[in-house]
Amino acid sequence: MPELTESVAQMISEFEKLPGLGKKSAERIAYHLLKIDKAEALALADSVRAVKENVRYCKECYNLAEDELCAVCKSPNRSRNVLCVVEQPQDILLLEQTGQYDGVYHVLLGRLSPLEKITPEQLTIAALLNRIKSGTFSEVIMATNPTVEGDQTAFYIIRQLESLPNKPNVTRLARGIVTGSDIRFANTEMLADALSERQLIR
Amino acid sequence: MPELTESVAQMISEFEKLPGLGKKSAERIAYHLLKIDKAEALALADSVRAVKENVRYCKECYNLAEDELCAVCKSPNRSRNVLCVVEQPQDILLLEQTGQYDGVYHVLLGRLSPLEKITPEQLTIAALLNRIKSGTFSEVIMATNPTVEGDQTAFYIIRQLESLPNKPNVTRLARGIVTGSDIRFANTEMLADALSERQLIR
Repeated sequence: MPELTESVAQMISEFEKLPGLGKKSAERIAYHLLKIDKAEALALADSVRAVKENVRYCKECYNLAEDELCAVCKSPNRSRNVLCVVEQPQDILLLEQTGQYDGVYHVLLGRLSPLEKITPEQLTIAALLNRIKSGTFSEVIMATNPTVEGDQTAFYIIRQLESLPNKPNVTRLARGIVTGSDIRFANTEMLADALSERQLIR
Repeated sequence: MPELTESVAQMISEFEKLPGLGKKSAERIAYHLLKIDKAEALALADSVRAVKENVRYCKECYNLAEDELCAVCKSPNRSRNVLCVVEQPQDILLLEQTGQYDGVYHVLLGRLSPLEKITPEQLTIAALLNRIKSGTFSEVIMATNPTVEGDQTAFYIIRQLESLPNKPNVTRLARGIVTGSDIRFANTEMLADALSERQLIR
């Protein structure tokens, strides 16, 4: 006869469904929410509701948006000549933080994965090909993750681009050793990439 | 120019306030909530709202309750002769899971802490003394945590009980080595407790 109230048990089971949260962390969060002001706890609840009611995918690039177009696609200051292909909306955030990119994006909403039965149809690849076909892109940057699945997704897209009359140049993010790190921490694969993509010092 | 939408940024900042969640985990949760069905995400929001609207403290023992009295205090099957004093409502859950206790509880809602400026007035100690004064308890079990602050809280309460005409016996949870563990993992304090509270084998 465990003596939690029904609402608390329900709330714990909802938090347990979140990624990275086990039973213990869900319980700790529940006790925290019980303790704090009602207004503070409702701010959390309302923020989730607001996201589910306001946020959708940009109809151009599948980034997160609160209108038809996302902030990048709406901006008149972005170049429409370069397109950067990423797996997830959060990748855009990381790239934007570098301040090094002024083109537009395309979010695949995942990567191809035979193991998880994720096929091209479940990603936004068809929309990507249409954008490139009818666009004026001189370069497409493949910024999928440097993993087997990320690479395979990039190669699949590159093969689809081969037949386009206006096929743009395709590049990928540089790979190598990590700035500010120590070569001792680099694994063989990183060093192999760093060697094969070595750069002339000017 | 970070390109999260305003609602998503707001939601991440709300999750970051939860104990044990940093920026990275809050973001991971946010992307999960973005991905899942609206109904599923709203179930989380609604569970928090329901708790803040329905859950209060039992007016008898300060356990969590959805009515005036908690499930333990409402039960006709619990002995009113033994009272177990705990720091938090969640401690009741752990003790109930043992199936070894059929008395009632009193939740202090914390422990005395000079460091955190938690004084007797901020706990439910006055209510506890009133309950004992006007009750028929033959035993009070001090089940505060086996820490300096938990012990000091218990000793403070025991001193207050000295002057009562109907002073009950006061016991505390046994301390010693851990069932199923190995003596090598016990620290000095655990072994000292285990020695000084050693039991006759019958």
